[in-house]
Amino acid sequence: MKKLLLLFLSSILLISCNQKQEKPIDNNQFSAEEKIDSTKIKTLFNTALTEGKSYEWLRVLTQNIGGRLSGSPEAEKAVIWGEKLMNEVGLDSVWLQPVMVPHWVRGEKEVANYAINGVQKNVPICALGFSIATSKEGVLAEVIEVKSLEEATALGDKMKDKIIFFNRPFDNTLIKTFEAYGGCVDQRVKGASVCGNFGAKGVIVRSMTNAVDDYPHTGTMSYGDLPKEKHIPTAAISSRAANILSDDLKANPNLKFYFKQSCETLPDAPSFNVVGEIKGSETPENVFVVGGHLDSWDLAEGAHDDGTGIVQSLEVAYLFKKNNIKPKNTLRVVFFMNEENGTKGAKKYAELAKLNKENHIGALESDGGGHTPRGFSIDANTVNTKLLQSWKKLLSPYGLHDLDKGGSGADISPLKAENVTLVGYRPDSQRYFDYHHTSTDTFDKVNKRELELGSASMASIIYLMDKYLYNNTPVKP
Amino acid sequence: MKKLLLLFLSSILLISCNQKQEKPIDNNQFSAEEKIDSTKIKTLFNTALTEGKSYEWLRVLTQNIGGRLSGSPEAEKAVIWGEKLMNEVGLDSVWLQPVMVPHWVRGEKEVANYAINGVQKNVPICALGFSIATSKEGVLAEVIEVKSLEEATALGDKMKDKIIFFNRPFDNTLIKTFEAYGGCVDQRVKGASVCGNFGAKGVIVRSMTNAVDDYPHTGTMSYGDLPKEKHIPTAAISSRAANILSDDLKANPNLKFYFKQSCETLPDAPSFNVVGEIKGSETPENVFVVGGHLDSWDLAEGAHDDGTGIVQSLEVAYLFKKNNIKPKNTLRVVFFMNEENGTKGAKKYAELAKLNKENHIGALESDGGGHTPRGFSIDANTVNTKLLQSWKKLLSPYGLHDLDKGGSGADISPLKAENVTLVGYRPDSQRYFDYHHTSTDTFDKVNKRELELGSASMASIIYLMDKYLYNNTPVKP
Repeated sequence: MKKLLLLFLSSILLISCNQKQEKPIDNNQFSAEEKIDSTKIKTLFNTALTEGKSYEWLRVLTQNIGGRLSGSPEAEKAVIWGEKLMNEVGLDSVWLQPVMVPHWVRGEKEVANYAINGVQKNVPICALGFSIATSKEGVLAEVIEVKSLEEATALGDKMKDKIIFFNRPFDNTLIKTFEAYGGCVDQRVKGASVCGNFGAKGVIVRSMTNAVDDYPHTGTMSYGDLPKEKHIPTAAISSRAANILSDDLKANPNLKFYFKQSCETLPDAPSFNVVGEIKGSETPENVFVVGGHLDSWDLAEGAHDDGTGIVQSLEVAYLFKKNNIKPKNTLRVVFFMNEENGTKGAKKYAELAKLNKENHIGALESDGGGHTPRGFSIDANTVNTKLLQSWKKLLSPYGLHDLDKGGSGADISPLKAENVTLVGYRPDSQRYFDYHHTSTDTFDKVNKRELELGSASMASIIYLMDKYLYNNTPVKP
Repeated sequence: MKKLLLLFLSSILLISCNQKQEKPIDNNQFSAEEKIDSTKIKTLFNTALTEGKSYEWLRVLTQNIGGRLSGSPEAEKAVIWGEKLMNEVGLDSVWLQPVMVPHWVRGEKEVANYAINGVQKNVPICALGFSIATSKEGVLAEVIEVKSLEEATALGDKMKDKIIFFNRPFDNTLIKTFEAYGGCVDQRVKGASVCGNFGAKGVIVRSMTNAVDDYPHTGTMSYGDLPKEKHIPTAAISSRAANILSDDLKANPNLKFYFKQSCETLPDAPSFNVVGEIKGSETPENVFVVGGHLDSWDLAEGAHDDGTGIVQSLEVAYLFKKNNIKPKNTLRVVFFMNEENGTKGAKKYAELAKLNKENHIGALESDGGGHTPRGFSIDANTVNTKLLQSWKKLLSPYGLHDLDKGGSGADISPLKAENVTLVGYRPDSQRYFDYHHTSTDTFDKVNKRELELGSASMASIIYLMDKYLYNNTPVKP
């Protein structure tokens, strides 16, 4: 028995040993300068993981303030909160940039249903941002299911007085889920403008998600150049409801779908970008931006979209200050307003940067959720792209393997220019569209470590960019 | 306004375009043979992501059967379920391997508390596997807090009649969380054997987790060669309770901690490994194993530990069959019994393999949770390790970047030999110890896509191993 227990004990320890994977970061593969960088990066990660503030900040933003669509009282609370917090972190200066933003309101909770053999099926539904309301009585009409804008357009006048149901699902074989989103979102954005033109009564769209579940996902739409009298109400239904409706339509092609919503677009409202900076120690006239968007959809708390980007951006500055890292160039944290329905904050920021002849060297945006870090997407000239990619060995010990050329983000894109290096932070995207623009995008879906690893990842690339993109002339590390 | 709307529409589309990261897999970088492999791997992923069964299987295993500690009625139900399911998937042969397993039972729900200034604080607690019970009245004693086995040992006879409180937390700066676990678990495994020897009344251990929360985490312990009369009860308390108790002890060093538990170790019970195989088309005498463990702790549903490993392992065979891929060597799926407290199933499997002179070429284990894929850990000779690492360009489009040398897993380790290639599947580990061995390890914590991506990752490396480790003589791809 004694022998058995000893054997057993050693097998237990084997379990933990077998699972050990982490190797100490091998400083021998690094040059002297890279060793300094590697040590600095490790320090940024250690601080984030042991003294990080982002998780608690996120709790306040999501649970105390909540959903904060542009023009809402919550969005204004978020502005005040953001300004106060930037001051608390001790940025050298903090200010608000006034900007007029669209002001769309959802109104009463939407209702949708249809009857099969006298039995009513209720459908989870939500209006799309900028949609008009239905009449007070709602819309009741037969349904035509289509899979694309082209298929809808081909219907022509057959759409008259019908509800058009866009039901092309995400391509789940795409590994990066933003690709699947990109392949479907035209239905949501343009569906109503296409169908309104032919006298359809309304448009319903399958929710933008990889999952099959009961949550309708909102998001912005546009009537494009459609004359106002042709505007029709549009809404998203849950993916499961879309599957069921599609099946029911096969057996009952003449079923009548009913929905009612009371949303409306009010006059533009005054709001703000929140901006704070650490003055550069050597060339303060050169500016790096790190940011996310402060507004969110109204259905939930705006945790992954984009509370995480907000608190991570500020944590970059916090990590610099906490470790007494003084950026050579000015490091500016921007909480952009109105990314979700207008990107007015982004445009205002770029407009003022131009007006004030500010020299932006680079910008980093976090607007892909707060999941475990995977890397960065680089939108820069060839020289700078290669420079950033050369940092792979410094970043890969932290799971940051993806350093591909690609887009950056909607809020920093207006800063695009030949010598401006734009970077999008890219966390793992597998779960993102479970929560995106729907009622489940809440604080409890964010993991503290994953959030903090993201802050440290962002701080690390900003540290390297500040050092090596110095004065916009790349220096080989 | 029309111009504004058009501008707006294009900015919306910019959002989705900016987020697009995925590039088509560049077949030009591949040799002719690698193009075949790349296509095959893509097919495995496509099938998993569109026709995968693992999520539904996991739902049944976790929600219909539930926690399934060795020797429990649920473990036996899981054996019957596993055998039936392997037959349904259409494996060529399915059988049970009898094995005697330890049979420890938790008994009544544990109780713990202490009083400060007459106010009682209740403490979330759970007995550790193989611990003895307290007396029916429970244990009440003063507490000495220590951070290590060495610190405890140094106390010597001062431990007499005291409760020893092990409170060394995870090192949260370690990026791979299994490292942090490996650095702490000795407190849980050996604490009672060290302290029992000096007459302590009991041992309580801080839960093994990165998080600070209210869930006690169970896990196995051992009395080693301590004589039976020196065995003392041991339990884990939640990490938050550990922090609070530590603070309270500073102000009230003489506080008395109380806990009661009624667990016991019953005689060994009969159980089974569940084994099924697809016969090899060329050299059926050569065997590859893919497996996980069927047993789980009793506090939850055993979702991430290790329901996900079970369903992913079977899905490897399902993906082969669905795509009509006939392995050259025999592909054997093994649901190991009793990984959590004894690894008797693993030992039995290896013992029978030796007895039956089976030629194992390799084995793959999934026992690190069902989160998003990161890679594999390779325990093989140098030639085979390099061969596996040469597949990086085939695997990295799926987020599989980690192909380091390291341990494999507790259930396949007994198969270790010079020419046997052992591989551990390594999903992202950041959230894993939030759920590990505690009541929150439930089905809802598993994401369908992440689970399926894991199955496909495993199927892909098995496909490559079957093709290139053929007959144990590595062939350059």
